[in-house]
Amino acid sequence: MSLKHAVLALVAERRGYGYDLVQRFQDRVGPGWRLNPSAIYPALDQLERGGLVAAASQRGGTHRSPRVAYAATSAGAAALETWLATPDTRPQPVRSDLHLKLAFARAEHRDALLAELAARERSSTELLAQCDQATSPAARRLVDAAVAAHLEAELAWLREARATIQSG
Amino acid sequence: MSLKHAVLALVAERRGYGYDLVQRFQDRVGPGWRLNPSAIYPALDQLERGGLVAAASQRGGTHRSPRVAYAATSAGAAALETWLATPDTRPQPVRSDLHLKLAFARAEHRDALLAELAARERSSTELLAQCDQATSPAARRLVDAAVAAHLEAELAWLREARATIQSG
Repeated sequence: MSLKHAVLALVAERRGYGYDLVQRFQDRVGPGWRLNPSAIYPALDQLERGGLVAAASQRGGTHRSPRVAYAATSAGAAALETWLATPDTRPQPVRSDLHLKLAFARAEHRDALLAELAARERSSTELLAQCDQATSPAARRLVDAAVAAHLEAELAWLREARATIQSG
Repeated sequence: MSLKHAVLALVAERRGYGYDLVQRFQDRVGPGWRLNPSAIYPALDQLERGGLVAAASQRGGTHRSPRVAYAATSAGAAALETWLATPDTRPQPVRSDLHLKLAFARAEHRDALLAELAARERSSTELLAQCDQATSPAARRLVDAAVAAHLEAELAWLREARATIQSG
């Protein structure tokens, strides 16, 4: 997953420090990504080691944890354009740990499987409620629509899968 | 992604060497995973380093690349049961590089974006044709149904997204 490219796109628009980038990522990409805020820092480190971003200023924070604002370098701006201008035409898999469990579970794992399906149904319902395209900013509407389409398909399948396993 | 657990499950059922495991994985999990056959080897190495599988026999192959059959150790069998018996109740994200591109593309990336959507439509249509639940083995039907549900939702969304971007 290309979180790195998203972070690069954010600092190319305007410099930013970690927490600021987390908020801007969430505004732009929406709730489907379920961004772990701490994932921003290794992405920034990797980009900095690759020469694609550089520390532009430092203000505030603490001695142990200074608040560093990052900016894209010219190599970073070029890498960003290449990513955006190059269609990724590789076939994409549809993968989920849950599919592996379904493939390998035996009769004695039935209750664990049903509990996992029920938990997934709850959390997908909650996430779907957050992808309200009517209230999404215009620029984010297509992403929220994609996430909602997948969640709706998953919820329909989860209900069928639970019924199949319960009756089996 | 927990390919490691799937490989552990396969060798726990009966010992197997690399290529044999690839075929058994594909029979059990189906086409949605788009397994890269070479991904089996690092999974086996990691399991072996963790003491969860062990080389059980060696027959054939070449000097440089011996054909080693792996079996689950008793620690491996226990780890497999824990995985299958423990429901994963963590909320799951809906992530795709394409969502990041949509979030950060500008007007000048419109053609690249449309090309990527078209390529995705082609490859998802092909994959969907391979998830024919009517011809799937019974044990795999739920997994193929899950993959098909996601692909159908994605295809419907892809068509809408293309129309939105073309008219925008």
